[in-house]
Amino acid sequence: MNFASDNWAGVSDRVRDGLAAAGSGMVPAYGGDELTRAVEAQFNEVFEGEVAVFFVATGTAANALALAAFAKPGGVVLCHEGAHIVDDEAGAPEFQAGCRVQGLPGANGKLTPAAIEKALQRFSPAAVYHGQPMAVSISQLTELGTAYKPEDVAAIAEAAHAAGLPLHMDGARFVAAVAGLGVSAADITWRAGVDVLSFGGTKGGCWAAEAVVFFDPARAAEFPYLRKRAGHLFSKSRFVAAQFAAYLGDGHWLELAGTANARAQHLADGVRHSRHAWLAVPPDANEVFAVIPKERAAALRALGAVFHDWPQTGIGADFHAGEDEVLVRLVTSFATTEEEVVRFVELLR
Amino acid sequence: MNFASDNWAGVSDRVRDGLAAAGSGMVPAYGGDELTRAVEAQFNEVFEGEVAVFFVATGTAANALALAAFAKPGGVVLCHEGAHIVDDEAGAPEFQAGCRVQGLPGANGKLTPAAIEKALQRFSPAAVYHGQPMAVSISQLTELGTAYKPEDVAAIAEAAHAAGLPLHMDGARFVAAVAGLGVSAADITWRAGVDVLSFGGTKGGCWAAEAVVFFDPARAAEFPYLRKRAGHLFSKSRFVAAQFAAYLGDGHWLELAGTANARAQHLADGVRHSRHAWLAVPPDANEVFAVIPKERAAALRALGAVFHDWPQTGIGADFHAGEDEVLVRLVTSFATTEEEVVRFVELLR
Amino acid sequence: MNFASDNWAGVSDRVRDGLAAAGSGMVPAYGGDELTRAVEAQFNEVFEGEVAVFFVATGTAANALALAAFAKPGGVVLCHEGAHIVDDEAGAPEFQAGCRVQGLPGANGKLTPAAIEKALQRFSPAAVYHGQPMAVSISQLTELGTAYKPEDVAAIAEAAHAAGLPLHMDGARFVAAVAGLGVSAADITWRAGVDVLSFGGTKGGCWAAEAVVFFDPARAAEFPYLRKRAGHLFSKSRFVAAQFAAYLGDGHWLELAGTANARAQHLADGVRHSRHAWLAVPPDANEVFAVIPKERAAALRALGAVFHDWPQTGIGADFHAGEDEVLVRLVTSFATTEEEVVRFVELLR
Amino acid sequence: MNFASDNWAGVSDRVRDGLAAAGSGMVPAYGGDELTRAVEAQFNEVFEGEVAVFFVATGTAANALALAAFAKPGGVVLCHEGAHIVDDEAGAPEFQAGCRVQGLPGANGKLTPAAIEKALQRFSPAAVYHGQPMAVSISQLTELGTAYKPEDVAAIAEAAHAAGLPLHMDGARFVAAVAGLGVSAADITWRAGVDVLSFGGTKGGCWAAEAVVFFDPARAAEFPYLRKRAGHLFSKSRFVAAQFAAYLGDGHWLELAGTANARAQHLADGVRHSRHAWLAVPPDANEVFAVIPKERAAALRALGAVFHDWPQTGIGADFHAGEDEVLVRLVTSFATTEEEVVRFVELLR
Repeated sequence: MNFASDNWAGVSDRVRDGLAAAGSGMVPAYGGDELTRAVEAQFNEVFEGEVAVFFVATGTAANALALAAFAKPGGVVLCHEGAHIVDDEAGAPEFQAGCRVQGLPGANGKLTPAAIEKALQRFSPAAVYHGQPMAVSISQLTELGTAYKPEDVAAIAEAAHAAGLPLHMDGARFVAAVAGLGVSAADITWRAGVDVLSFGGTKGGCWAAEAVVFFDPARAAEFPYLRKRAGHLFSKSRFVAAQFAAYLGDGHWLELAGTANARAQHLADGVRHSRHAWLAVPPDANEVFAVIPKERAAALRALGAVFHDWPQTGIGADFHAGEDEVLVRLVTSFATTEEEVVRFVELLR
Repeated sequence: MNFASDNWAGVSDRVRDGLAAAGSGMVPAYGGDELTRAVEAQFNEVFEGEVAVFFVATGTAANALALAAFAKPGGVVLCHEGAHIVDDEAGAPEFQAGCRVQGLPGANGKLTPAAIEKALQRFSPAAVYHGQPMAVSISQLTELGTAYKPEDVAAIAEAAHAAGLPLHMDGARFVAAVAGLGVSAADITWRAGVDVLSFGGTKGGCWAAEAVVFFDPARAAEFPYLRKRAGHLFSKSRFVAAQFAAYLGDGHWLELAGTANARAQHLADGVRHSRHAWLAVPPDANEVFAVIPKERAAALRALGAVFHDWPQTGIGADFHAGEDEVLVRLVTSFATTEEEVVRFVELLR
Repeated sequence: MNFASDNWAGVSDRVRDGLAAAGSGMVPAYGGDELTRAVEAQFNEVFEGEVAVFFVATGTAANALALAAFAKPGGVVLCHEGAHIVDDEAGAPEFQAGCRVQGLPGANGKLTPAAIEKALQRFSPAAVYHGQPMAVSISQLTELGTAYKPEDVAAIAEAAHAAGLPLHMDGARFVAAVAGLGVSAADITWRAGVDVLSFGGTKGGCWAAEAVVFFDPARAAEFPYLRKRAGHLFSKSRFVAAQFAAYLGDGHWLELAGTANARAQHLADGVRHSRHAWLAVPPDANEVFAVIPKERAAALRALGAVFHDWPQTGIGADFHAGEDEVLVRLVTSFATTEEEVVRFVELLR
Repeated sequence: MNFASDNWAGVSDRVRDGLAAAGSGMVPAYGGDELTRAVEAQFNEVFEGEVAVFFVATGTAANALALAAFAKPGGVVLCHEGAHIVDDEAGAPEFQAGCRVQGLPGANGKLTPAAIEKALQRFSPAAVYHGQPMAVSISQLTELGTAYKPEDVAAIAEAAHAAGLPLHMDGARFVAAVAGLGVSAADITWRAGVDVLSFGGTKGGCWAAEAVVFFDPARAAEFPYLRKRAGHLFSKSRFVAAQFAAYLGDGHWLELAGTANARAQHLADGVRHSRHAWLAVPPDANEVFAVIPKERAAALRALGAVFHDWPQTGIGADFHAGEDEVLVRLVTSFATTEEEVVRFVELLR
């Protein structure tokens, strides 16, 4: 019953085998190899068009460097107040992009066009001391496990583009969102106005497979230098390529996400039918945010369940947990078993 | 006949298998797992004492972050003018540590205590505009394939410490040096005065296994934040641990390095016995720097040999290649075969 | 009737003459002159103890560099959400100190120990991704013209120091606060626990006279390098010293502040006695925040009054301006005349 | 007999009086005042075209921020190895522009097109680890008191522009060079290909009057934010404007430089006619680099002469001072008197 995080899991068998198979032979370092070319073609296929893809070590690096590609002096990045880039990356965006990250309110962990427009009013060339807006960033999934639909993304992109700002999507759980929404990767990104995506493969079933994807390759011109300066250009870069090749091949990525999401929906159903617990937010993919009695949480842990308490911010003005209750996060992964879920649901009832 | 670089190779079978075996099960993310604890113990054993070890994605990251741990405003890092941190890391040290990197001359790619002492004369609190020295950095192997002996390191450490400066060692090819010198890892590092080491496992036979090793753990207090801010804290950190566990276990690391070094010595002997070529620098480990006729270099490449031309800096004042000659670098790895070497040597003769 | 800002004024006659008198003669550059030594002694006198004083060009530089002196990787500065360092310095603190600035709520523009303590709960070495707290910063005057009393400062300092954090005071209008509170400069700073102060002379009646004051000179060891790296070490540094010498001599600083404060109190009385306007916050020094009908604000401007509208944040939950009302800021300076104030008050009535 | 530096002098009477006259009245802060507009017009006149001018506090700030306006990730600035930006600014360019500064050799302190072209060969998009060239920077005067003629500047600009790089001119002593060469400010800058200039008024006779001048105003779009983020936007900005208004008016700037240069030529003649001393470099403006016996240098100092010893780098391969000799720098300013020079020359003879 381990629902701590999807990054506690290992790798899928297919990813494991793909990586093992790539272990021999001499190929050019630093991404000059054929497997990397093949993976780039896979990304083009996934996104139904030509994109520019760059591997980096972590999701934090992907976010910080994606934003750095749009850096301006005195730049301000607008995002939801609960966003990972706000206070879960130890200042990486500020450091890499020399920017300020400004969190804005929004229910269910989601940024809104209205919040962006209001925040933008404060900026003008005459008020140089406020800095200048530089980018809008959203998380897909959000930090509360909710997903932006294509029309949500499009509305935000419109607000950003109207102000000349690029739209960044933090896709640490992008694949879970794609599977959960049942949309195409292209529809939920560039067709809806996303300019740059942090594409996460790690949480989905790889070891360390994160990529920055530019939907207009021309905007990636400086990125190779940004990445190298940050120490994120792998020499044996094919080890990332090998993971992505296995992960993106034959729909494996969506299959793994489908499993994780199904487990989460099972958990959510268990919460809905429990007298002791209720859902803080309707879950869209592989994360369930539930409010349960503190006593019950302790009992579950005593029986071996692993999960995290969570801060109650960004849910909405009308959200209210009782004194004796606690908000908890339950995350499933490709490796979560049906048995774990069944047992947890039984214990919760 | 591929002597392009040791980072063109893949991974050893043992590393491959170790990684594959670690692929299942749920363990804490971000280095909180037991395998990481075990690898930390292996490092303590390798270095015969308690060290603080941090995994990062690349050698460039290891160097930049190791130096950043000793950052001072207006700081200047002193190193050899041919050092990797000078102009092979796209400004990573300057960016991460907010420093200036000052290259100093020295024969055979080696920094000398005298060069350090001379450079230090320029600095004083009264001359704030020159900045302040912050660290001394040496590469082991050097960029010319030579190795500092324990007494060389000790002399440099003495010069650095006399000025209150820590000594950093860029060990991208540290294991090759240890094997080549036939010394213990402890003798060539902390016992000789090294304060922080970039320990490279990637070139030796891993996928991506780089670590920053502090010999006084107390000086590593801020490092977790430096690493996270740089996007170098892997979530599924055990994938680095699994590589190191296999690499450092049962002397595998030294065995692989021994193979690579033996191949290089074979190559060097071939150069010595060739009428057409000569050694620019006596090789200490797995890199051979040879001067060969341009015509012969072209012929070798036409027959399938892969190797890089190299700039003729940092070798020494008396080094002089002829107009018709070119300096080339030949790098061997654990995966270099005896056949490749034999063929190359024959063609060179 | 110009109440736009105290930085729209010029300099006092005494400062003007002091600067003119310093214009001839050869003296060491970069602060090595005797006048600078004399001003340092004046600062010691003002603060009743030995302090370390550094001139910089602007208040923004003073704040950013003062915080940079306590920089940590992944560092977070805690302050009031309306603080100047949050969004009036174009990211200067983030850039100079590599930090994140986190604004906290508080009534009347004031930070509280409770808000600090609550914010600190989020940080721990186990949660490296949140970063680490680095400093607490308060503005004296606050951005709403209120002043922290010695006991307020002491309570905040206690909360900061309990967490091992230094307390920074942004004193762009420090002198106005000292005059308004009727306290000694020492009592409101180091005796109450302030560790570093941005001391502003510019708004009080100088051209450009800003200083960073460390109350424990040992903590200023790296500051000369921070300042030089930021381009804030004036070569003809005595031009700042000459301004401070005139400003701090014979109580001139407090005299000028007394005038400005008296004008503001006169304005505040006018607001209190007006049927059309009311005070948003009780003014403690030279800034008056008043709510007036929009129509009346327009009429005043048509008659030549100059003042700024102000955002209604950080005042308090129970503050509420009407639809037809606007919050305005009225700032007085040493150069504000009694006639301006009388006329404005009459027009407001 | 004070030849320590031109920044040991104060201000000219005219600058002093202009500043004093600007001390009263209320005007918009942050450069929104009419005097600043007037000074901008003066700059347009001086440079015979429309330029974008920004005041900053120091020459170090001007250089670092001018380069930051052209920043690229992994950027490398090419300049002469003796340039002020190399090691007299405590890492300010590296910090503000996130760049690396690479010094190149050149006789008499001057950078050459050939040196630039050779350095550029190392860079290519395929070699991302070397970084990318970002700008070329020259000092006018050079650090050895020599001046680039218009054709010298044009040749360097051609080499820079051919590689797509902007040309920056560090003009801390730009006015001295203009006066020494007898050229127009436009001819020696934009007409010869300079893109951005650090224009120094401080050494010429102001207190603190430094400006960054963009010859194509379109390239200055981000500069207001760069300046504010660096803490270099003065609030009472007119105090810089007042100095420049007086300095640039009625040819005062060239008159002051003419005086300083004449004194230096007098000194140089004295050196030429002395049996004990010789010129290391032919002086072009207000700096004289002379080689004199160590004993004589000590004697001069004992008699009250003030001047600095200087490192013997960047002069040329054939330069050679004797064991008993020392290279010294003698700087004159607008305030240097004929008497001081006469006395020094007599003592030198």
